[in-house]
Formats: sequence, C-alpha cells, structure tokens
Amino acid sequence: MWRATVFTLFPGMFPGPLGVSLAGEALANGIWALETRDIRAHGLGRHRAVDDTPAGGGPGMVIRADVLAASLDAGFLAGDQRPRLLLSPRGAPLTQARARSLAAASGVVLICGRFEGVDERVIDARGLEEVSIGDYVLSGGEIAAMVALDACVRLLPGVMGKEASGVEESFEAGLLEYPQFTRPREWEGREIPPVLLSGDHAKIKAWREAEALRITRERRPDLLGKDEREPAPRGAPERR
Amino acid sequence: MWRATVFTLFPGMFPGPLGVSLAGEALANGIWALETRDIRAHGLGRHRAVDDTPAGGGPGMVIRADVLAASLDAGFLAGDQRPRLLLSPRGAPLTQARARSLAAASGVVLICGRFEGVDERVIDARGLEEVSIGDYVLSGGEIAAMVALDACVRLLPGVMGKEASGVEESFEAGLLEYPQFTRPREWEGREIPPVLLSGDHAKIKAWREAEALRITRERRPDLLGKDEREPAPRGAPERR
Repeated sequence: MWRATVFTLFPGMFPGPLGVSLAGEALANGIWALETRDIRAHGLGRHRAVDDTPAGGGPGMVIRADVLAASLDAGFLAGDQRPRLLLSPRGAPLTQARARSLAAASGVVLICGRFEGVDERVIDARGLEEVSIGDYVLSGGEIAAMVALDACVRLLPGVMGKEASGVEESFEAGLLEYPQFTRPREWEGREIPPVLLSGDHAKIKAWREAEALRITRERRPDLLGKDEREPAPRGAPERR
Repeated sequence: MWRATVFTLFPGMFPGPLGVSLAGEALANGIWALETRDIRAHGLGRHRAVDDTPAGGGPGMVIRADVLAASLDAGFLAGDQRPRLLLSPRGAPLTQARARSLAAASGVVLICGRFEGVDERVIDARGLEEVSIGDYVLSGGEIAAMVALDACVRLLPGVMGKEASGVEESFEAGLLEYPQFTRPREWEGREIPPVLLSGDHAKIKAWREAEALRITRERRPDLLGKDEREPAPRGAPERR
C-alpha cells in the first residue's frame, strides 16, 4: 500500500476531492492510505500559536521552525525513507516524470505551508525538499498537496481501468496530447477527421503523432528538445 | 462580487477546500460566489451518459461534444463575458500574471474534463480556452479548478489581511521569494541572519533582493530574463 502523510493546519480539508472518483475509489480499495497530521497540535501556549511575524519586518506571518519540527518529529517513525516535500512556489516544478517516480516509491510525506512561508531553518534542518506545482501563489499548500497526490495516485497499479491509459497522454512522450473525438460523427456541421474513422491503424497513429507534434510546437515550444529547434536552455530539461 | 461558475461531473467536490480558511472566509463574506453546474444533468439516456470511446481507438473515454455543449448552453446567461477556461494539460500554463488578470475581471467560468479528454469540436465551437496548472496529468480538472480559484480569490480586494501581502512574494517581481525567519532567534544552534535583526531597513531590503536573485538563479534560471543571461527561449516569457 502506497502511504501518504500530510502535515497541515487544516486536516479537515482532507481527503476532500481525493475522497471521490478515481482517487477516492483507490483509497476505499486500500491501494493507497492517507494520514493527516495537525501541525497545530504542537502549537505554543493556550492559543497553540504556530506562527510569528517575519524577522526583518514585512507583511504576513511565518510558520515557526520549532513548532513545525516538533510536529514532524512526532509524526515520523524511525527509518521512514519516504520523500519529504514542502509545497512552495519556490520549489522545483512538479513534473509528470517526478509524479511517476513518487508513485514508484513507498509513498510520500507532504508538508503544507500557509501565510508568508516557513522558517528557512526547519527546511534545512529536517531535509525538506521544496516542490512547486506551478508559477503562481496559493493561499496554502493544501490544494497543492492534493494536486501532487492525485497526479501520483492515478499512476499506482490497479487505479486506472487499463494500464495503457496513462501512456498515451500529455508529457509521457514529451509532447502534449493529440486532439480527441467521439460520437456523434457529425455535430453542429463539424465532422470527426475521416482518418480516425478509416480503421487504418498505421494512418491513425501517424496522424496522432503529427497532431501531437503540431500542438506542442504551437503551444509549448519549450517542451521540444534539441532535435526540434535551438539548444534547450538551462533549467528547461527539468520541466519535461 | 467576483463570480465563479464550475462545470463538472463532481459538483459535490465543491467548495471542498475552498470552503475553509482564506477562500472560505471570503466566500462566506460575499467577496466571491461559487456556482457549480453538473454536466451529467445533460447526459444521454437512462444512464445519463456523458462520454464515449475515442474515435480511432485507444484507451479511456472522451466527453461528448453534444453533452458538454448542452450543459454550457444551459448554464450561460446571454452576454456573460467571463473567460471560459477548460482545465487541461494541453493548455497555456497558468501564471501569477494570469491569476492577477482573472482576479481583475468580473469572474471566471471553469470547465473540468475527466477521462481521456473532451471532444475537440466543443472546445472550438464554444470558444473554450485551454489552461494548464502544470506539466503533469491529473485524474480530472476539479482539483486544477480549485488551484485556479484559490490563486485568484486570494488576490481579490479585502481577502488578504494587508494589501501589501501579495506584492512581496514569488513571481510578483519575476523572482522567487527570499528566505523567511521568525522567532526564536536561535533554534537548534541555528541563528536568524543578523542583518534581519539589525533594524537597518535599507540593508534588510538589499539582503532580501540579493537572496531572491540568488535563489532564483540556483533553482529557476528559466525565470530570469535577458539582462541576466543568454536570451530567453521562445515560450519562456509566458511562464513568468
């Protein structure tokens, strides 16, 4: 069983959308397990304070190193080798390749920040790896943790209906996915491209590969490698 | 009031995590409104089918153009000028700049795909704009829609405690955020950098700018522009 542990100030948010549909069925079937740890249980004083004002001034509040460390130290069993990811816009971008490697591990530990961030010292001292789900800022790490979990869980063996579903999709071949069509054959005067109805599997495969390449070139030339255009910039390979 | 409408096969997932904390308080305070539309209400036949097998073969199921169009057409008021975003890994990457522009509009319409995708014809015919929250694949668009909504809602006037919180953070100056520290001054033998305790605001500002630049250069050189290094590749400016 793939085990996820989430450290959060809002344990009630979980499983939330992960309790429904594909991830929810996999949770009910015991393919994965989800444990939440309430950081506030290790808060200080009568009000269980978890944050304080930033050293050097500035808006917002920063999660204290001592409080988060106490929560982490109480939540880990000795020898737990799972990756410890802190969801943060400053982190390395989550990619499909990373989701595949996380899904292949025994599970994952996710730490959800809030406010202006987390005291840098606890990130260093507890070996947290900062991971970002995209180049935007959220009100906290919880929804980002759900994104990471959903991306991993659907790749676990037995979750998707057919093993094949997951191979022919965006990013798996370094390309965006080709356009999809289904019945009806004609809709509002628009036809399904005839090649898809030809029954000629070689032609269909060639059309789909050409369309995937066209769409990637139009929308995301940054995903295409050296063979396609000028040398990829530093940093770019991580995004594939 | 900023108005969000979400078309989904899982209306019960909403507001979910958006009903708690910052976004949830703003929802309760009437700063924004969230409406869900169940695509299945326009499904076909006794089982309210919404999907069918991909034309040309392949794994998974594709959402039918006629069903999604019927749902959209019933859900829009004439003259609704809000952007209509289809969450999809094939889309343009969501950025902080895009979140700012969506927050400045009257609201947003979000369409959540599932399965292998949506019939391409309805994307064209109804002018849906594909948007991606990152380079990975999810089991559906619902959690991605929550990401987009959270990124927007926190930027609405009156949501964050101080207007300033939101300016000095990752991506707003094209850089990742500087490290944060808070009390205690010493923790596990680790000190807060002395400059942050100096009270010298000019020095603090200079230190933070240098740290933001150092971290961005180390972790995300792709975010740095022409002045910093070699010319930015095509596609890269969109990611800022």
